[in-house]
Amino acid sequence: MPLTDAQQAEIEAHARESAPTRRPTVPALEDMLFKAFPVLDHGFVRVIDYMGDDSAIVQAARVSYGRGTRKVSEDAGLIRYLMRHHHSTPFEMCEIKFHIKLPIFIARQWIRHRTANVNEYSARYSILDKEFYLPAPEHMAAQSASNRQGRGEVLDADTAHDVLNLLRDDANRTYNTYESLLDTENGPGLARELARMNLTLNTYTQWYWKVDLHNLMHFLSLRIDPHAQYEIRTYAETMLDILRAWVPVTAAAFTEYRVGAVTFSATMLSILRRMLAGETVTQADSRLSRREWDEFQATLHG
Amino acid sequence: MPLTDAQQAEIEAHARESAPTRRPTVPALEDMLFKAFPVLDHGFVRVIDYMGDDSAIVQAARVSYGRGTRKVSEDAGLIRYLMRHHHSTPFEMCEIKFHIKLPIFIARQWIRHRTANVNEYSARYSILDKEFYLPAPEHMAAQSASNRQGRGEVLDADTAHDVLNLLRDDANRTYNTYESLLDTENGPGLARELARMNLTLNTYTQWYWKVDLHNLMHFLSLRIDPHAQYEIRTYAETMLDILRAWVPVTAAAFTEYRVGAVTFSATMLSILRRMLAGETVTQADSRLSRREWDEFQATLHG
Amino acid sequence: MPLTDAQQAEIEAHARESAPTRRPTVPALEDMLFKAFPVLDHGFVRVIDYMGDDSAIVQAARVSYGRGTRKVSEDAGLIRYLMRHHHSTPFEMCEIKFHIKLPIFIARQWIRHRTANVNEYSARYSILDKEFYLPAPEHMAAQSASNRQGRGEVLDADTAHDVLNLLRDDANRTYNTYESLLDTENGPGLARELARMNLTLNTYTQWYWKVDLHNLMHFLSLRIDPHAQYEIRTYAETMLDILRAWVPVTAAAFTEYRVGAVTFSATMLSILRRMLAGETVTQADSRLSRREWDEFQATLHG
Amino acid sequence: MPLTDAQQAEIEAHARESAPTRRPTVPALEDMLFKAFPVLDHGFVRVIDYMGDDSAIVQAARVSYGRGTRKVSEDAGLIRYLMRHHHSTPFEMCEIKFHIKLPIFIARQWIRHRTANVNEYSARYSILDKEFYLPAPEHMAAQSASNRQGRGEVLDADTAHDVLNLLRDDANRTYNTYESLLDTENGPGLARELARMNLTLNTYTQWYWKVDLHNLMHFLSLRIDPHAQYEIRTYAETMLDILRAWVPVTAAAFTEYRVGAVTFSATMLSILRRMLAGETVTQADSRLSRREWDEFQATLHG
Repeated sequence: MPLTDAQQAEIEAHARESAPTRRPTVPALEDMLFKAFPVLDHGFVRVIDYMGDDSAIVQAARVSYGRGTRKVSEDAGLIRYLMRHHHSTPFEMCEIKFHIKLPIFIARQWIRHRTANVNEYSARYSILDKEFYLPAPEHMAAQSASNRQGRGEVLDADTAHDVLNLLRDDANRTYNTYESLLDTENGPGLARELARMNLTLNTYTQWYWKVDLHNLMHFLSLRIDPHAQYEIRTYAETMLDILRAWVPVTAAAFTEYRVGAVTFSATMLSILRRMLAGETVTQADSRLSRREWDEFQATLHG
Repeated sequence: MPLTDAQQAEIEAHARESAPTRRPTVPALEDMLFKAFPVLDHGFVRVIDYMGDDSAIVQAARVSYGRGTRKVSEDAGLIRYLMRHHHSTPFEMCEIKFHIKLPIFIARQWIRHRTANVNEYSARYSILDKEFYLPAPEHMAAQSASNRQGRGEVLDADTAHDVLNLLRDDANRTYNTYESLLDTENGPGLARELARMNLTLNTYTQWYWKVDLHNLMHFLSLRIDPHAQYEIRTYAETMLDILRAWVPVTAAAFTEYRVGAVTFSATMLSILRRMLAGETVTQADSRLSRREWDEFQATLHG
Repeated sequence: MPLTDAQQAEIEAHARESAPTRRPTVPALEDMLFKAFPVLDHGFVRVIDYMGDDSAIVQAARVSYGRGTRKVSEDAGLIRYLMRHHHSTPFEMCEIKFHIKLPIFIARQWIRHRTANVNEYSARYSILDKEFYLPAPEHMAAQSASNRQGRGEVLDADTAHDVLNLLRDDANRTYNTYESLLDTENGPGLARELARMNLTLNTYTQWYWKVDLHNLMHFLSLRIDPHAQYEIRTYAETMLDILRAWVPVTAAAFTEYRVGAVTFSATMLSILRRMLAGETVTQADSRLSRREWDEFQATLHG
Repeated sequence: MPLTDAQQAEIEAHARESAPTRRPTVPALEDMLFKAFPVLDHGFVRVIDYMGDDSAIVQAARVSYGRGTRKVSEDAGLIRYLMRHHHSTPFEMCEIKFHIKLPIFIARQWIRHRTANVNEYSARYSILDKEFYLPAPEHMAAQSASNRQGRGEVLDADTAHDVLNLLRDDANRTYNTYESLLDTENGPGLARELARMNLTLNTYTQWYWKVDLHNLMHFLSLRIDPHAQYEIRTYAETMLDILRAWVPVTAAAFTEYRVGAVTFSATMLSILRRMLAGETVTQADSRLSRREWDEFQATLHG
């Protein structure tokens, strides 16, 4: 359960407030505001604020005096055009702010996206809660034999059970040490900035993360990719649902021209042309490596 | 007059729309939304959208579940603390979007601030209006004798008048050539992306410019400085007024700890200590250059 | 002719200096250092400094203690893999610094790439030279009828001649005004920061521009595109030649996986699969707009 | 000892290579290249490459054709001027690349500086070494009573000893679990991307970190500050020594105008003026809070 009753009450009190605004509003996203969408065992994603909507992209692309929008079909056509031709600046005109709770080892991947604003809960200043990520059995997988940075087979139930016990025991033990190090009555009252070093990387942290729409889509396109680690991918999928509620036209163009799109190299394109001309091309006469040939075949045949 | 009747009507239609939101709203800024604040002879600054308010800074600094604010005095104390100690990330949690009309040679200074999002009116795609900046006589100054990148004495009325005529004539002439180059009936119908090269640098352009609060304050601190060129400074001053309406507590801290603050070098600090101990220090025994000594004296004596 | 004799002599004196270094060096790029490669009528591109080579990418990807490179074929394979899978951070480990002279209206496009370091010649501080871009007749084209931001037919010789005269006359006239405004003896001695506003946008400026290899390739991929304006494309092409000398393995991968690659949308991919299965697909049953269908056909048939 | 014999040999082989270059070279920094400067118990800082020197700053500020430097005193004067007036872009024209080994909890602070390029050793791809940070007894301190994010008194020897044992035991145990989880023979062969979550935050990681001189100085000014956590401060101090070898004139200006400089708020400046006019000012009539008054007094009296 990611939230305490006190936290839930605080969120609900916040959500009840309302005021009129002349800014663009998105009712579907207003309904989602502040709500904690659960991710993993203790994590969540909450939308705290947003700026702009689909029409704000159109308005900026046209550098308009008023709303700047025309017919719905024209606006959608413009958004699709901008997406297709990588005109990214109009998408930068929308912004969204999240509150996210996530394991530290995932936060370390996430923070590599530099074009965002971040305020993380400070373990120099405050004490972290006793919450750590333990994978569900179906996500407990062996090292991939073929891919040096991926997962292979899911562990059998007994093995998964044993692994979970090991992870849980170590996390509990290190957290207990952390607590006793901080203890000012019966312990040394060690500085928080030092004591935290004893925590394991599956401990949860949290942050406010604010990003523009263009960079959010870039983040999502990298992190919903099947090669991304499952744990960050599941956050990305939750955020993609939010994207669909916020900017439905942009989200559809994103699916068409990014997520569902494929890129073929110069060599692959030349092979494609030969194939369309009726030629049967094999790896041997493709000038592709075995690995690239396999990737190419997989793409062509879904 | 910076706006046509049609533009004014479009703005007003936009401004009449209103909807409820659960996001933070700032009534003083809502009142300003979309309004064109005139700057220079044809320029303006308009606020198009904003995200967050003073309390959003506090909320992010505390990584809160709800509003995150406490007593007004505590929140103000925290904002002042963050400003004083250069904790910039909570200020990045607010965002503002402007529509700005400005002369091209000022746009070229402005764009050097890289941490912002920009959509400029495209002269490849569209035709620029016949509007160019002509300085008011009181801003028409000779090159400074002492400062290689500044202005000195204001020109006398007759000279200013002559200069204005020269500027106006050249701008008119080059714009007329631009128009005739574009003319597809009686002229060559030159590509817009080429014809624009004939315009002078005082031609007005416009853009949507979106920035977070931290970077806005950084921009303002550099551009309201007396060493900034007058033409960009006057935009910065208009935006500082907007800042005061949007985030009054932050704006006050900004005035106290940035705009009105001074920095003394290590050597200046050591001189200061000698002076406070009663010593009379002269430039000769100060280890400061004449130029730095003068700057130091000017700061100490206002 | 882009350089005066004095400038040429200064460059050559600089180029004669040499010193031993333990850093990676690239002889082919060393030979190019400081040389002004002419672009347009008065512009140029010069390489001033560089950091890293192909093996520095491998070294960073492996976080190595020593050189970090293995067999040439393994290193090339790794670079191709990184390029194909958009692992951009190892490419950020190389850096290059250029001195570029270019017309102001092109500088305004260029500066939109924010992830670079720039020092521009200051017209607040110094006086610009009397040099402005005049297109060669073969680049003097009419507005495209089909593309709102492109060129169509080249002008006939007589018309091009007339256009050139108009551009030259206006540039000469506004520059002469600029000079007379600056004149402290027989003119008003106007501040440089003001006088510059009278110059036309084809006046040449110059800057030092420093960028990492990843962002350089991003810049090149956008600017050597046929949709980019000719004037900036020709700079990009000169820089692509420099890229090939500097990091030949990376440049080959860039050509294979970026410049020569194509992206198909989700819908296009599904059509492709139908075609490869032997089906004849027409625009009518493609679910593509006429415009996208034409783009698709153009890609497939080169 | 931070390096194995094999690593040391690899570094030395690399360091023996030399080639001529026409780029600026800094002999004092060449001598330091590749050498691992030890930091903390297992960490280090190594310089891998650099671009530019003091004169490159001058050259860029002048947008020169040749070296661009004049008399040594003039160049130094220009660098001091640029530093004093926050003209940061010429400093961005130099770049440095480090290889750094550091505990993960420090890497998490460090990465918050976004304007740098980073390649970190991947624990998805590779297995981390059994090395974790254990503070020296003299750095083992209790939580500060007055500062919520700082250290207070150093622990007594016995307590420090006990704390060390706790930290060491937990780090050993979690690392042993990590190893057994990875074990493909006698263990589950868990995916590396999962197993790493069991490590404690004092485990060492390493990365290549590349940054321009302006942003390096910004990083250093924040991290050599007495309020920075000791563990990151000691890295910053090592890098400041490197800065002095690399760009001695800039480093001196940095010390004078940044590190040793002080900023007084608007209110503090007004008090200072009263004091210099002979008035005795107390906190009561200062309009400063007790806390700011104490900071002000501390600054004035060293």
